[in-house]
Amino acid sequence: MDVYIESIGKLINELTKLPGVGKKTAQRYAYTLINMPEKEVQVFVNSILNVKKKVKYCSVCGNFTEEDICQICQKRDRKIICVVKDPKDALAFEKLKDFKGVYHVLHGVINPMEGIGPNDIRIRELLARLQENEVQELILATNPDVEGDATALYIAKLIRPLHIKVTRLAYGIPIGSEIEYTDDVTLLRAFIERKVME
Amino acid sequence: MDVYIESIGKLINELTKLPGVGKKTAQRYAYTLINMPEKEVQVFVNSILNVKKKVKYCSVCGNFTEEDICQICQKRDRKIICVVKDPKDALAFEKLKDFKGVYHVLHGVINPMEGIGPNDIRIRELLARLQENEVQELILATNPDVEGDATALYIAKLIRPLHIKVTRLAYGIPIGSEIEYTDDVTLLRAFIERKVME
Repeated sequence: MDVYIESIGKLINELTKLPGVGKKTAQRYAYTLINMPEKEVQVFVNSILNVKKKVKYCSVCGNFTEEDICQICQKRDRKIICVVKDPKDALAFEKLKDFKGVYHVLHGVINPMEGIGPNDIRIRELLARLQENEVQELILATNPDVEGDATALYIAKLIRPLHIKVTRLAYGIPIGSEIEYTDDVTLLRAFIERKVME
Repeated sequence: MDVYIESIGKLINELTKLPGVGKKTAQRYAYTLINMPEKEVQVFVNSILNVKKKVKYCSVCGNFTEEDICQICQKRDRKIICVVKDPKDALAFEKLKDFKGVYHVLHGVINPMEGIGPNDIRIRELLARLQENEVQELILATNPDVEGDATALYIAKLIRPLHIKVTRLAYGIPIGSEIEYTDDVTLLRAFIERKVME
């Protein structure tokens, strides 16, 4: 006799497809869903189906949107473009409520080990945007790892002929952290990129 | 402008209804669902709806089942009943693959602070089972906390006239743990209930 009832076992299996969710967590989620009132479950399920139906990629920046062109591309300063790997990175900047420009979502970074080349991410679309519109600054906000750095470097070299100001985020020790517990790579980078105090 | 697109915001909100899921985790789940192929999402959603449609409570023991009477009640030794608070507690015992009896799920424990009395949990149904069938042992496997202990005690007193053997799980220091890090209540209980070595 199997430990789980068939339909519950299947649900638990599906729930483990969520990131970081193991069997135990999936089981807790499953039991919560089973104990939810019918109507609430319907709302829960509809919210998933609704997102799949409505959300698509912005035809300009590649970020998520429910329209053809996202609200950010429609309303904000197109002269500053922040290049990110994923929609969730754009979201992280949005939460700061400080950036007034627009985004360009690459949907990945160059990663030769996984066979992802420049043509597999949205670099071509970025070039088109730079040639069509007058852009004053391009912020390359890919992650500070090997692939992110390589991708930023690749893009920077590629658009050098366009004479656009290209910037990259400052990397160093996180605010509020302790030097003692900072990993070596971060500490080294912070040390190398140290600045004169004014 | 809101940080989230409307349908994504709603989905994130729904996902926080899962136990222990905050905004950040919900966001990760939402983005995973958005990036899942349409078909996979359909399977995911159907597994939830399917559980809600098929799973009900066993008319005998109150555990989850897809039938009127669960597989455990149908096939196993009804002379030993293990009384638990929730279906997930029954599942914990099932995983041991050692218990050959049946369960009785109370769906709660007596908790005067929250207004839950003996009539609000399935004690009446337990009594009916004990009177109908010949039961040799009743294992009271409610949690070792105030409410669990009180509920076990209440049931034990209630069925004293029936002269059924009533047992409770052994409580003490968890196997593999260290005395140094064991909480006071557990250590005290283990000390009081110490046994003669044979």
